[in-house]
Amino acid sequence: IRSNSMKKNSTSLRVRLPVLVFALEVLVVVLYSVFVTYDDQTNALLQNNKTQPLENTVYQDYPFFADIQVMIFIGFGCLLAFFRRYGFGGMVFNFLTATFAIQWAILVQGFFHFYYDGQIHLGVINLINAEFACAVVLISFGAVLGKTSPVQLLVMALLEVPVFGVTEWIVVEHLKINDAGGSILIHLFACYFGLGVTFILYRPSLNEGHSKEGTTYQSDLLSVLGTLFLWVFWPSFNCALTLRGDDQHRAILHTFIGLSASTLTAFALSALLSKNGKLSMADVQNVTLAGGVTVGASVDMMISPAVAYVLGMLGCTACMLGYKYLSPFLARRLRLQDQCGIHNLHGLTGLISTIAGICAILLASEETYGPSLYQTFSYRLEAGLGRTAKEQALYQVVALGSTISISAVGGVLTGLVLKLPYLASPTDEFCFDDELFFNVPLDEDQASESQEPRCSETQITNHQYILQSNFCLSTVY
Amino acid sequence: IRSNSMKKNSTSLRVRLPVLVFALEVLVVVLYSVFVTYDDQTNALLQNNKTQPLENTVYQDYPFFADIQVMIFIGFGCLLAFFRRYGFGGMVFNFLTATFAIQWAILVQGFFHFYYDGQIHLGVINLINAEFACAVVLISFGAVLGKTSPVQLLVMALLEVPVFGVTEWIVVEHLKINDAGGSILIHLFACYFGLGVTFILYRPSLNEGHSKEGTTYQSDLLSVLGTLFLWVFWPSFNCALTLRGDDQHRAILHTFIGLSASTLTAFALSALLSKNGKLSMADVQNVTLAGGVTVGASVDMMISPAVAYVLGMLGCTACMLGYKYLSPFLARRLRLQDQCGIHNLHGLTGLISTIAGICAILLASEETYGPSLYQTFSYRLEAGLGRTAKEQALYQVVALGSTISISAVGGVLTGLVLKLPYLASPTDEFCFDDELFFNVPLDEDQASESQEPRCSETQITNHQYILQSNFCLSTVY
Amino acid sequence: IRSNSMKKNSTSLRVRLPVLVFALEVLVVVLYSVFVTYDDQTNALLQNNKTQPLENTVYQDYPFFADIQVMIFIGFGCLLAFFRRYGFGGMVFNFLTATFAIQWAILVQGFFHFYYDGQIHLGVINLINAEFACAVVLISFGAVLGKTSPVQLLVMALLEVPVFGVTEWIVVEHLKINDAGGSILIHLFACYFGLGVTFILYRPSLNEGHSKEGTTYQSDLLSVLGTLFLWVFWPSFNCALTLRGDDQHRAILHTFIGLSASTLTAFALSALLSKNGKLSMADVQNVTLAGGVTVGASVDMMISPAVAYVLGMLGCTACMLGYKYLSPFLARRLRLQDQCGIHNLHGLTGLISTIAGICAILLASEETYGPSLYQTFSYRLEAGLGRTAKEQALYQVVALGSTISISAVGGVLTGLVLKLPYLASPTDEFCFDDELFFNVPLDEDQASESQEPRCSETQITNHQYILQSNFCLSTVY
Repeated sequence: IRSNSMKKNSTSLRVRLPVLVFALEVLVVVLYSVFVTYDDQTNALLQNNKTQPLENTVYQDYPFFADIQVMIFIGFGCLLAFFRRYGFGGMVFNFLTATFAIQWAILVQGFFHFYYDGQIHLGVINLINAEFACAVVLISFGAVLGKTSPVQLLVMALLEVPVFGVTEWIVVEHLKINDAGGSILIHLFACYFGLGVTFILYRPSLNEGHSKEGTTYQSDLLSVLGTLFLWVFWPSFNCALTLRGDDQHRAILHTFIGLSASTLTAFALSALLSKNGKLSMADVQNVTLAGGVTVGASVDMMISPAVAYVLGMLGCTACMLGYKYLSPFLARRLRLQDQCGIHNLHGLTGLISTIAGICAILLASEETYGPSLYQTFSYRLEAGLGRTAKEQALYQVVALGSTISISAVGGVLTGLVLKLPYLASPTDEFCFDDELFFNVPLDEDQASESQEPRCSETQITNHQYILQSNFCLSTVY
Repeated sequence: IRSNSMKKNSTSLRVRLPVLVFALEVLVVVLYSVFVTYDDQTNALLQNNKTQPLENTVYQDYPFFADIQVMIFIGFGCLLAFFRRYGFGGMVFNFLTATFAIQWAILVQGFFHFYYDGQIHLGVINLINAEFACAVVLISFGAVLGKTSPVQLLVMALLEVPVFGVTEWIVVEHLKINDAGGSILIHLFACYFGLGVTFILYRPSLNEGHSKEGTTYQSDLLSVLGTLFLWVFWPSFNCALTLRGDDQHRAILHTFIGLSASTLTAFALSALLSKNGKLSMADVQNVTLAGGVTVGASVDMMISPAVAYVLGMLGCTACMLGYKYLSPFLARRLRLQDQCGIHNLHGLTGLISTIAGICAILLASEETYGPSLYQTFSYRLEAGLGRTAKEQALYQVVALGSTISISAVGGVLTGLVLKLPYLASPTDEFCFDDELFFNVPLDEDQASESQEPRCSETQITNHQYILQSNFCLSTVY
Repeated sequence: IRSNSMKKNSTSLRVRLPVLVFALEVLVVVLYSVFVTYDDQTNALLQNNKTQPLENTVYQDYPFFADIQVMIFIGFGCLLAFFRRYGFGGMVFNFLTATFAIQWAILVQGFFHFYYDGQIHLGVINLINAEFACAVVLISFGAVLGKTSPVQLLVMALLEVPVFGVTEWIVVEHLKINDAGGSILIHLFACYFGLGVTFILYRPSLNEGHSKEGTTYQSDLLSVLGTLFLWVFWPSFNCALTLRGDDQHRAILHTFIGLSASTLTAFALSALLSKNGKLSMADVQNVTLAGGVTVGASVDMMISPAVAYVLGMLGCTACMLGYKYLSPFLARRLRLQDQCGIHNLHGLTGLISTIAGICAILLASEETYGPSLYQTFSYRLEAGLGRTAKEQALYQVVALGSTISISAVGGVLTGLVLKLPYLASPTDEFCFDDELFFNVPLDEDQASESQEPRCSETQITNHQYILQSNFCLSTVY
């Protein structure tokens, strides 16, 4: 009992979470009030007689913003709710972490990309950028799902977003790479940052398996629903920040084709590699999405539909083999307990995508692109950077190297911070268990045992509405 | 047995529901055929050589319409499905009520706002307006969830929509207030109407708690999913009827920021105010949304991102304290059994929003807005109404007062109508219970007990397809 | 045991599914690489100084494409997950079949409609067309849900898409009928094709009912969620391929009104026709949608809102009576075991829609349409086909007849192919059972019996992540 109460105390959110959240909110609100103002599309003062309201960029940006919101809050939320008793944690900590990550990224990216006249200028375009930073945090979250408290997750977001901001600044503003779908900047960064964190948060006892790690029929269905939302809106993710017009059109096409190819392949490999010739829901939930990442780095280029298809197949195959053979090896030998297998879905596929992107850059010519060549590959303009394709290939490699190094080091350092005391880290026993951080409702069977109204302490905490629980209190008092 | 069969008879929908629905349908179809025609964007006859099809307003309106449809049918539907054994009722009665409310609002609002040349002129813009009226009904529904039959809900919609229509006509057409997000007109109206209804439908026995009021693990997850849909598309709700261009752009930004702030705050307060330092799913489902209401009345103004953030925090705090302390008081002392706590999520937040709106109006100046001042605050045009900011503040207060009074009185009167006999009102015992109005499938355990095909009466009613049930019948006969 | 292992072998997907999928993928990728290129909206080479990126057709097409994606992958997916133990099958085989059907339709429709200069030209518009072909396959799938293996479903898609392609080519390119919402071409085709298939796949033992055919509380909720997604986005489906401008505007209005009317009617009839005066979830899931089909053939015409309303009511009534009286008859007398009742939701409603369409064509006049008459009914242009309304009515009838004949014959032939050996057709006993094709997680109760980590063979196959299962393996070895 003593050890039980100690555990309870060390993971109670009662003081820890509010203190951290209010501190972060004060920080955000002070910085917003000092530094954040409207951009020229949201500032009433900058509109005049000649402004055409319908030409406001919000009409170009908002549809993509909304689609990506669905991916982040609903797609990721459902996908991460696959554990038997960690559905609340998966869906709700995703909600909390994503919300803070976006707020914070607005500031961090603001300083790097939208800062002039002493102010960060804000419009929906900033929100789209912040959503990408948020996606990075959520992918990394996948590596430590079920093993971290909401306090730790907020600290992780607090640290990961600035490291990402710096990397983005280097890669986008200085190296000026082609990476429309974010295969390098988003997926590889998120993957190696997450691996860095989980390397430090290694829990040897989990290598023996954990009684709560399984899924249920319902949780598997919910998780597939999340996959489907990610699948359906992924074209918006990959095209949101590409050039308008045919570039964006191609990005949509290629993403759709890549995802299609990886989905078919995933079903085939799932049956082929299973002992009993049955499909595994984990494969359906994860491996089907590999194509979305694999087409990323070249998604806006003239790679041809057939090549997008092949990329989807390749990415899916690498991802599946990764789940089957590489992840166990990483966990046993390298202390990399990658809970959702992000190294397979975002790492291996990201590497393939990077290589494909380099090939597409090397093959790009005026014959294929016409004058558009100097838009999609603007660094080739002689009046500008005047890089050759080969030089650019080198920049892509440099970007790859720096992204992986910075993210891995950042992840390791963040992991060390997350090991500090007072962050409510769950004990091994309570990993993957909503009981630790949530008032979980009683099971139907337990609940229906007693037919009369119950007003016990447990009951009260489970009531949907504080309203009712207080009715109970009133009858107790 | 006798009392049981009496109960069954008094709540059977077999005659009551079809009679009411067919009466309503005949009413609607007659009024549609006499009064409803196409508007100039849908009427083929009014298009000519100079019409640019792509400039049809449908392309501006439809995306917002679709987003709000998702909020109403899927967001509300899932959110209201939180009760242990009332998931069908929550989701399906929402579907029924919303569908009728929109049909009816097209007529009612049509007479007030789209009526000329002896006809109501119809386009997608009418549907957006009707969705707002529908949202009003659904919010009020939250106060009496689980305690009303579908017949009562349709009657409520039948009465609430015209009362709302009149209020809207007064507030929008005559008082001409600023209320882009509908904090006064939608949220406060819906809240006090719902409280009026529930005041009359008071059930003393429910103050003791009810055995079916709890949630389950699955129902909590489904309800959070509803919250997430509302959260993601709320910017569309708050901006759908604002001025195009920068006004709409700001409305999207502020709604997002307000929701973000209230979400973070909700997690902090949920942990802080719980006895055991754990999070409550009811808070995640409801309190996170407070910011969307709180920014409503000033959502299109130049309030600055930081103020939107602070409004989100304030609204969330008021909402949370309301759930914790005010709702129990209202229920015990004032007979206000507010099932979903709409007074917290829509009432308290609506009041804060109204005050914030008045402040924003008083502070609005040409310095901040430039010439746009006379668009966002068109009543200030000297060539028009020529109101000063202070005068307008007074109009806002008048609007607040009239909205609350009309809605409360309307709610009370509607409640009295709902107490009429023959409306299939559930008995106390069968509140929050799908068994009363639905053929509920057997539990898995019960069902799997008998392995051979079963053709009992119970079984038949549970079959997915009447097809199969008739196979059973055929073997019985 | 012997018969058990035989069954296992005959339905193992281990070899069958990968062989078929890889064969199809090779076929697709070869045809894509030889025949598929970019269209003039996606090809960088065809853009020049005068190209306005924001006028790229992707911005007109993508929103509708995305909405229909949600319908196909999420709407259908959830709707078909209604069986007690076939949720994985419903949702996941829908995912697989839809993915392949779209890939394949891009090629088939490409040859018929987008082929010039020796190449199929690809843009998002092709994807929308392919989604319609995909919807056809998924509707037919409804007739044989739970009784077919994924191998059979892929073969069905492989055969149905070309038959549909030919029919589409005849009906659209040659007969040039009015059928904006696809009531004839999509719904009737899909219905009679599906009936043809299920006629051949007749399983007498299922006429006795099947122990796994029921639903659960959770599966019914998930299925309603699917219905709501279909309901909300159906206007996009019905308007995606109509003329821009007022035609598309009307299509949205009429679809919404038709669905609204059928939803109200469905609730009334569900209560009226049930023995105990309770609502049936199967009706809510299916019959509410009838109006979307019934308005289809005349959805872009000046039929007036009231007539759209009446069409919704009529379609719903026919659909409901079909479920109640016709389906059992078809199953008993005509060997037509129509698992989801597609003949009611797509067949009867499609017939009504066809008749309504013919009436609307006969009544169309310059008085109502003005010069737009010759756009919506372009075959009436004297400079073109110069058909009269009456002639066109005849063409509509011919289209109806040819669609039904071709689809029924195509369905029967496809059914014969599906009876070939090696297609992993489930035994009667394992119909509607996910155990056959999926590694299904243990029930919560079973799982929680043993608290220590389990590494049995069963356990391994149930693990979410191969990662963990290999941890287990490592401890076993």
